[in-house]
Amino acid sequence: MWLEPRPFGWEDHVKAALHEDVFSGDITSSAIPEGRFVNWYIEAQATGVACGVGIVSHLFGETTECLVSDGAPVGPGTMIARGCLEGNRALQVERTALNYLMMLSGVSTLTSHFVATVKGTKAKVVDTRKTVPLMRHLQKYAVRCGGGHSHRMGLYDAVMIKDNHIRAHGSIESAVKATRDKISHLYKIEIECDHPEQVSEAVAAGADVILLDNMLPAVMAEVVETYQGKALFEASGGVSLSTVRAIAESGVDVVSVGALTHSAPSLSFHLELN
Amino acid sequence: MWLEPRPFGWEDHVKAALHEDVFSGDITSSAIPEGRFVNWYIEAQATGVACGVGIVSHLFGETTECLVSDGAPVGPGTMIARGCLEGNRALQVERTALNYLMMLSGVSTLTSHFVATVKGTKAKVVDTRKTVPLMRHLQKYAVRCGGGHSHRMGLYDAVMIKDNHIRAHGSIESAVKATRDKISHLYKIEIECDHPEQVSEAVAAGADVILLDNMLPAVMAEVVETYQGKALFEASGGVSLSTVRAIAESGVDVVSVGALTHSAPSLSFHLELN
Amino acid sequence: MWLEPRPFGWEDHVKAALHEDVFSGDITSSAIPEGRFVNWYIEAQATGVACGVGIVSHLFGETTECLVSDGAPVGPGTMIARGCLEGNRALQVERTALNYLMMLSGVSTLTSHFVATVKGTKAKVVDTRKTVPLMRHLQKYAVRCGGGHSHRMGLYDAVMIKDNHIRAHGSIESAVKATRDKISHLYKIEIECDHPEQVSEAVAAGADVILLDNMLPAVMAEVVETYQGKALFEASGGVSLSTVRAIAESGVDVVSVGALTHSAPSLSFHLELN
Amino acid sequence: MWLEPRPFGWEDHVKAALHEDVFSGDITSSAIPEGRFVNWYIEAQATGVACGVGIVSHLFGETTECLVSDGAPVGPGTMIARGCLEGNRALQVERTALNYLMMLSGVSTLTSHFVATVKGTKAKVVDTRKTVPLMRHLQKYAVRCGGGHSHRMGLYDAVMIKDNHIRAHGSIESAVKATRDKISHLYKIEIECDHPEQVSEAVAAGADVILLDNMLPAVMAEVVETYQGKALFEASGGVSLSTVRAIAESGVDVVSVGALTHSAPSLSFHLELN
Amino acid sequence: MWLEPRPFGWEDHVKAALHEDVFSGDITSSAIPEGRFVNWYIEAQATGVACGVGIVSHLFGETTECLVSDGAPVGPGTMIARGCLEGNRALQVERTALNYLMMLSGVSTLTSHFVATVKGTKAKVVDTRKTVPLMRHLQKYAVRCGGGHSHRMGLYDAVMIKDNHIRAHGSIESAVKATRDKISHLYKIEIECDHPEQVSEAVAAGADVILLDNMLPAVMAEVVETYQGKALFEASGGVSLSTVRAIAESGVDVVSVGALTHSAPSLSFHLELN
Amino acid sequence: MWLEPRPFGWEDHVKAALHEDVFSGDITSSAIPEGRFVNWYIEAQATGVACGVGIVSHLFGETTECLVSDGAPVGPGTMIARGCLEGNRALQVERTALNYLMMLSGVSTLTSHFVATVKGTKAKVVDTRKTVPLMRHLQKYAVRCGGGHSHRMGLYDAVMIKDNHIRAHGSIESAVKATRDKISHLYKIEIECDHPEQVSEAVAAGADVILLDNMLPAVMAEVVETYQGKALFEASGGVSLSTVRAIAESGVDVVSVGALTHSAPSLSFHLELN
Repeated sequence: MWLEPRPFGWEDHVKAALHEDVFSGDITSSAIPEGRFVNWYIEAQATGVACGVGIVSHLFGETTECLVSDGAPVGPGTMIARGCLEGNRALQVERTALNYLMMLSGVSTLTSHFVATVKGTKAKVVDTRKTVPLMRHLQKYAVRCGGGHSHRMGLYDAVMIKDNHIRAHGSIESAVKATRDKISHLYKIEIECDHPEQVSEAVAAGADVILLDNMLPAVMAEVVETYQGKALFEASGGVSLSTVRAIAESGVDVVSVGALTHSAPSLSFHLELN
Repeated sequence: MWLEPRPFGWEDHVKAALHEDVFSGDITSSAIPEGRFVNWYIEAQATGVACGVGIVSHLFGETTECLVSDGAPVGPGTMIARGCLEGNRALQVERTALNYLMMLSGVSTLTSHFVATVKGTKAKVVDTRKTVPLMRHLQKYAVRCGGGHSHRMGLYDAVMIKDNHIRAHGSIESAVKATRDKISHLYKIEIECDHPEQVSEAVAAGADVILLDNMLPAVMAEVVETYQGKALFEASGGVSLSTVRAIAESGVDVVSVGALTHSAPSLSFHLELN
Repeated sequence: MWLEPRPFGWEDHVKAALHEDVFSGDITSSAIPEGRFVNWYIEAQATGVACGVGIVSHLFGETTECLVSDGAPVGPGTMIARGCLEGNRALQVERTALNYLMMLSGVSTLTSHFVATVKGTKAKVVDTRKTVPLMRHLQKYAVRCGGGHSHRMGLYDAVMIKDNHIRAHGSIESAVKATRDKISHLYKIEIECDHPEQVSEAVAAGADVILLDNMLPAVMAEVVETYQGKALFEASGGVSLSTVRAIAESGVDVVSVGALTHSAPSLSFHLELN
Repeated sequence: MWLEPRPFGWEDHVKAALHEDVFSGDITSSAIPEGRFVNWYIEAQATGVACGVGIVSHLFGETTECLVSDGAPVGPGTMIARGCLEGNRALQVERTALNYLMMLSGVSTLTSHFVATVKGTKAKVVDTRKTVPLMRHLQKYAVRCGGGHSHRMGLYDAVMIKDNHIRAHGSIESAVKATRDKISHLYKIEIECDHPEQVSEAVAAGADVILLDNMLPAVMAEVVETYQGKALFEASGGVSLSTVRAIAESGVDVVSVGALTHSAPSLSFHLELN
Repeated sequence: MWLEPRPFGWEDHVKAALHEDVFSGDITSSAIPEGRFVNWYIEAQATGVACGVGIVSHLFGETTECLVSDGAPVGPGTMIARGCLEGNRALQVERTALNYLMMLSGVSTLTSHFVATVKGTKAKVVDTRKTVPLMRHLQKYAVRCGGGHSHRMGLYDAVMIKDNHIRAHGSIESAVKATRDKISHLYKIEIECDHPEQVSEAVAAGADVILLDNMLPAVMAEVVETYQGKALFEASGGVSLSTVRAIAESGVDVVSVGALTHSAPSLSFHLELN
Repeated sequence: MWLEPRPFGWEDHVKAALHEDVFSGDITSSAIPEGRFVNWYIEAQATGVACGVGIVSHLFGETTECLVSDGAPVGPGTMIARGCLEGNRALQVERTALNYLMMLSGVSTLTSHFVATVKGTKAKVVDTRKTVPLMRHLQKYAVRCGGGHSHRMGLYDAVMIKDNHIRAHGSIESAVKATRDKISHLYKIEIECDHPEQVSEAVAAGADVILLDNMLPAVMAEVVETYQGKALFEASGGVSLSTVRAIAESGVDVVSVGALTHSAPSLSFHLELN
């Protein structure tokens, strides 16, 4: 029923978002006498996967009863949570709560469509670093709630060697060697390859993961078959719902999809009082 | 060339976003010797309206030359900005800069489509409070760059009386009276109306703005004609690109569109070194 | 019994103020053995209007019983709040609590004198932006507790066009037009006028509120009579307790008084243990 | 020309105060085209002592020329500072700058009146902890600019034993002994005494400073004469401009005045563009 | 059982330290199903003095039972605290809790050795400003738990005049005079002296405390004998466990030891589940 | 000459540390007239490896000339950095700068001793999470400057499965499987093993790294020989300068040493003015 793995610090995120909306005070509610309690509930208005229920509960306080967990399928009319709160307070947090719920459920929902589309292949659907500023931890959590997996969280937790890094080192071989020598023995090295020849070098250099950037499925299939077992293979580059199946069938281990976090339309929810 | 009206505090926003990506260090670049400078440029990969150029400039530092302003139309290949920077530093800020640029330009672009669609009517296209948490000021800025206008910024700068407020006060008349009595003489009062009868009451009570919620264009046209000049009229409720023209032609002053900020797909840009 | 409309974030304000006083520790109390509880109460030492009781309660913790609400009249000996707390803790928060209470009650008290003085006229007494840095939300709250009303909270929630803005736009007419075109349909426009001729222009340009700056009451009366119903009128400029009545009788809707927040003497309270 | 001794962190104070005023943007100025520069100056409108000139300079930026230093006497028409800045920016920081300048100069001015009144006696005029929340460091700086001195800054930098502490320890003697034993050898101990008998005990116990609380000048004179050289003596308790001379003539070393920081009326300044 | 005198703000310190360790999530524990509770306890693995038990309790939450207080002697196998917590949560806070406990107990332990070594002399063992950045308040608290005392907390709470200050003022006499004139009457003045002649001047100038910097014990003894009662004497400069006894026997009031906070080896503790 | 890889955010760390020392002002320097400039330099007083030079430069400002880089060997009298600064300012930052330099150089120096001791073996010396709270990024940077390498930075960037995790999953095999299934394909999995039998299971389960906890060198040698090439091997558990050579000769890839960061004595430096 709660965010998992508890992204440390999201309470501060929510506090800041509420501040963004309320700032110097809710002037509409200020004219209403205090002390009136209302029963509220939030329900979905479309079909998808819920995410952000814990944030709703956090904002509406102790009386909140969560009726679905993050990752649960919902449809029009599915009740997500309900509770009893002073009316002024409920109206004050309503928009902030819905903004999280709609955005995160949108990500979970889009992810679930990609996951469903590659079903039966061995490919995992993963996110990228193309996230909305300050929403990364929450959006990547939403991807996992939608059945996807997370790629690295940022520049700090895994190595990704791209064209420009290779150029700076002189060759793939020396890039891997110099990097391996410098980093923790606990970090993997991924190399971005545009052409099959680069893959050969990368495998020889001992890369742990190889990113096949914008290759045709047929080319990827050949690469995967050739180097099976010598590294993990990740397909990337403008992947859409209409192309992801063919890509996954090439045998890659992972398909990374930027759209999951940069272009997911929100899922509709609304709050009702009764 | 710079964010305008300068939203105070966005530098802290950008600093936090960079922290989110880099945290304990960019381990890939740590293996590259310092001191190598590169020439970089960012170009659009799709057609739309640019927004966030000032943030790009802020992240890439003093040598940055901005080639378009926020609000400018761009297409595939349009160069946005360029400069010269230490390679490690350019690679470190690249993703954060692009994440802002892609998200904000996505909002500006979608807004520009709505604005173009209502062209010739008197209706302004405005945003809502359905924004991504912590991105509100920037997203609403993007709406303005796309030719739209901003609704209230939050709960603090304008009054919006909804069903639940009316119920708490007993009637529209007493809601307006009690609120007017309490608030600053500089705040306007908007009332959300679901039915034409409510509009009659709202106008009588002296509302400054009336929100016509989910009404048919024909009904809105009648309302507008009847009460012309006695208040401003705002149409709202699930407005899309296919419905906005008919709504605008009803004669309302304002059409508010939540999708501008909660469901705009990002606009693609990429960074190149040369 | 609590701050209303709950100014979001005042708990952080109080935390910072306590930090300012205690910082590396209360060295006087550190020599006293822990665990001794005391009964404390706070009482007024002068006549006025209380404000800040909620902050007292917040600082002294759960056992606090508030005996008056913010906005209540008090006199020498009126008990404000009482409770039971570990002695070291009570002595640690005492000064911070009293500092808020004395400053805010001072503002409420001075406001109540202005409000009483204009009684019977239609004029509302309102505050200005001439507040003590970082105390604005709390001071404006105190003005409302004293029977006054709030003007705009800052530069962000209402438009005030002054001389310099007019000069930049060329004329009052173009200033109002350009601004109206740019801002939210929910913001009012106020124009500062030094002479009756400017009022004429401002009314013609469609200003919502007109600030009559340092005009003689007789002049203001004439202006108000001439333009009655076409805008709201606000008198401003060095208003004091001895001049406010005459000003209010000119028929203006609002009198704004900077002294409420920049020069209110504090109201005395002290803490006793028993 | 600058704050001295530079209170670390006042830049953050000023940034927060500006944020308080501008928040989501200066909507009045947003309609003015960027890039118009203006010459501005700030002048005093009343007689007193200036304080806060460094903050003005900080807010108006690099072109600012400060014409008086903190602590300088000013009168109506004294120019404080001037510079050249983009008009929008000048109007945005104007109010925040003046709010600091008016509040701090008010404190310096009131202090200077107390200092002038005790001239010729050996008594120093000092402030108290009765400061406006979050303004303590700046207000105490203003007291020093006005010719006064600072008492302790907070609970952390000197010991003040009051009634309640004495009661907790059993006696003045044991209070001093227990505290001396616990604290740094660099902290002085001050004891608050209501009666001459307590002074005897406090001196015997080795107090460094003795606060004579609300005693008559004649009583204080006797106390001072009796214990001359055995401790420093501080007079305190509702000291006003009409009583401070007699108190100072009793021979005390220090007179502490809460009103300096909790009830100083602001000193008027205004900004002009030319 | 709790930190005393409660250093305001250590909860924020601990929150930041936990953030440093967990950041985007504990990826090892994320694979374990939630809801499994464990019994944990922490025990010492070496002989010394415990410090930081309150922080352990804060991190492990409400069920924590503290078995020793800060300042208590412990040995291998001494149980410090125990409780029952969800396994994932216990593993998440374990390292952070132990890092505080080990570092602070290391300081307390080393302090206790110095205190034991000077036993029977009148000298107090005190800390310095040579602390680990951001750990000062906690380390100085640990010194007090180990039987030591605290010197000044920082540059803000006591005066220490060194060579360079003297040079700037021209002489010891004028340095003391100018400083005394400027500072609060509640601050003591300490002067650093390298030679006995300087001590003579410092005493004559009225210094409250004199720091004997790197003098031989015999020289210090002579100085102390000569000026007994005219000031407090503090010995300083590379004091170690092997030299401290002789220094203390010189009759100084205080011996300050930088190593207490900059070079104390940590004391070992570990967490066990059962 | 600068921290590398630039740990984002250390400027804020330094700012907070300076605040910790200065807070309400440097009262000693406040009596010295402003505007006197001094030439300063910092020199080492012992033999070791320098670390923190960039922080010194940051604190002393633009005129600072760094004479050695982080990681450079230094001895008594080695000049580290020098510059010219207003005297008051130099004295204000002196202690903070030295505290960083002494603590970090202490870590680099101790690390360099471990690295020298294992020279000729293939073992890398790495740090642990046993760091001083809030100093982790800087201490781990210091380890790298001393010739060591970093282990994971926290709970967020690599998986370490310990006893308690294994117990929760039922077996090593299921622990690895469940974790691999959940985490990013870019994270390695390390398993802590107490006995050779566990190593067998861990290798079979596909662990990337195996931590040999408190095993005898002979046992480790056997383990390493048996499973060579199937995983990386890390030795851990109370490693000291006297035991590390034998451990390294067992053939392990990595030796992790908690003492590097929790018990390194500081390296002495001092500042001189001339």
